[in-house]
Amino acid sequence: MTDGEDVTGPVLVVGTGLIGTSIGLALRRRDVPVFLQDREPDVAATAARLGAGVDAAPDQEPEAVVVAVPPDHVGKASAAALRRWPGAAVTDVGSVKTPPLEAVTAAAADAARYVGSHPMAGSERSGPLAASADLFDGRVWAVTPHEAADSAAVDTIAALARTCGAEPVLMTPVAHDEAVARVSHVPHVLAVLAAARLDGAPGEHLQLSGQGIRDVTRIAAGDPDLWQQILSANAQAVVRLLSDVRLDLDRFIGELSSTAPRVQPLLERGVSGTQAIPGKHGGPLRSVATVFILVPDRPGQLGHLLADSGDAGVNIEDIRIDHVLGRPSGLVELSVPENDGERLAEALAERGWAVHR
Amino acid sequence: MTDGEDVTGPVLVVGTGLIGTSIGLALRRRDVPVFLQDREPDVAATAARLGAGVDAAPDQEPEAVVVAVPPDHVGKASAAALRRWPGAAVTDVGSVKTPPLEAVTAAAADAARYVGSHPMAGSERSGPLAASADLFDGRVWAVTPHEAADSAAVDTIAALARTCGAEPVLMTPVAHDEAVARVSHVPHVLAVLAAARLDGAPGEHLQLSGQGIRDVTRIAAGDPDLWQQILSANAQAVVRLLSDVRLDLDRFIGELSSTAPRVQPLLERGVSGTQAIPGKHGGPLRSVATVFILVPDRPGQLGHLLADSGDAGVNIEDIRIDHVLGRPSGLVELSVPENDGERLAEALAERGWAVHR
Repeated sequence: MTDGEDVTGPVLVVGTGLIGTSIGLALRRRDVPVFLQDREPDVAATAARLGAGVDAAPDQEPEAVVVAVPPDHVGKASAAALRRWPGAAVTDVGSVKTPPLEAVTAAAADAARYVGSHPMAGSERSGPLAASADLFDGRVWAVTPHEAADSAAVDTIAALARTCGAEPVLMTPVAHDEAVARVSHVPHVLAVLAAARLDGAPGEHLQLSGQGIRDVTRIAAGDPDLWQQILSANAQAVVRLLSDVRLDLDRFIGELSSTAPRVQPLLERGVSGTQAIPGKHGGPLRSVATVFILVPDRPGQLGHLLADSGDAGVNIEDIRIDHVLGRPSGLVELSVPENDGERLAEALAERGWAVHR
Repeated sequence: MTDGEDVTGPVLVVGTGLIGTSIGLALRRRDVPVFLQDREPDVAATAARLGAGVDAAPDQEPEAVVVAVPPDHVGKASAAALRRWPGAAVTDVGSVKTPPLEAVTAAAADAARYVGSHPMAGSERSGPLAASADLFDGRVWAVTPHEAADSAAVDTIAALARTCGAEPVLMTPVAHDEAVARVSHVPHVLAVLAAARLDGAPGEHLQLSGQGIRDVTRIAAGDPDLWQQILSANAQAVVRLLSDVRLDLDRFIGELSSTAPRVQPLLERGVSGTQAIPGKHGGPLRSVATVFILVPDRPGQLGHLLADSGDAGVNIEDIRIDHVLGRPSGLVELSVPENDGERLAEALAERGWAVHR
């Protein structure tokens, strides 16, 4: 590392699935030398052919080793890397950080050079062929040094995240695991609980499905094998929050079973919670106006709509498309900065779009 | 009603808030005579000025009366309308259907002409100024006749929904209330439970918030006053489903508290549930491919991107924009028919977009 900003390598990637191969590709964009290893040599060879690095043992001590193997093998592989490369900073990129640290410490490896991390990026696909050089661009990459971690190793792993295009965010392994329990694992469980109510539901019930239920349940479609591993690895933090959920759920059930239900305080906490999510640019949440447009559902219409929005000089913060039962049209919801709503609605109406607010 | 397709009117709208005024505007598009009433004459006058109808008593027996007053007053107002207009079909447009029916029956009004209904459309805004003539275009409008309902009245209310641009879907009041408990009210409660975990959460936890938690919690931002009324009115159906939720939640907590958690069967039920949601066009869910593009976050870029997608002849099924912490760029996720994914990615890459899949 030369300037405290980028890694210079070489970097050894152990495990060349989606994440490992993407890291190789991202580093190669910046000409960092990358070596690739995988338990299955064919998989490493594929990653190499894609341009993620060289599928060979490093010809010198690597600056950093990235362990990108399946959750159940992370701890062991990280300890092995620390032993094999006594000069390298070692990170793993699994989605839970306490268990691998415990494994490394238990293996009595040189834990000072181990700094776990977690890029907040992924895909519903897997394997090297699904990898992408810009998977991490602009994403948060949690870097989770333990108390005995070497500060040079921490710097190296943060630099690795930056070189891959991500934004390193430092926190302890425990804080990380609590954080992902809160913002990812528990929401996943709640999405599953909502979705499970639809399994085997009468068709006429499902006919009334709107955008709300689609949004709430979207992540429940995630791979059950993977989520079984993630939730098991972070069971303690998840159970703690799920117990809070159960208390609130019992309050809802209790109130709604009474003759004069009063669920407003619970609902108000939900509103506060949505307001606590950082704004889309990492800043405070901005007020947005919403403009609805009915758009024919055929190629190019959405492009014309957004080109017209661009001509009006309005920046689109968010889009939702609500396709319509049995009709070849979609209702498009554009979110724009609050002050631009009226202007956008007028500009689009002038150009003949079916606008309503 | 002449052709079994459209109402010819006159239609009397009682309550000229967002929904009532929008119904008036929608009917006026088709030249149906509309009369407007509101407890507050000023509000009816505003609706009239917007073009939703005439703020006067009908000069003849209306074909249909639409009761669009706040939830707590729906039953009483519907019974009053049945008494006042002995030849009219009467509907209300509240989001729960059993309580107003009970109120109408208890008032010993001529319940045969009462047919409750529920347009699946709304806005986060309220009042006549937020109304729109095309609020119902392409939306489902549940029409919920009770057993003793007159078939002519049912036809009239279904025709009213169609004339407003919606798709009438017939079901019993009980089935409707169970359906909305399942696809709307219980998901709302679960979104609130997820969002409540963010209220007062450490800032470093919130930093890791991604698209998943945003989707799960979006509807939890809804108005607590309104949701207090909705959940109270449908308490029985909601509690029944929340009790199922509690059983599943206890299973999650039990498994994750054990030494060898096995939550896969629960997760698989969630996957099945997401697959049960009807496809975006009311048909079966289509397989989609996903293409990710990093887009500079300034006016017009999204338009250019989608114009280029249109030029490639690919129809966009869905869009998500994931703005990026501290960066002036957004990650755009385009969902397209499965067979078009590769082609779109190539076409966009050729035009210089930062594409990854």
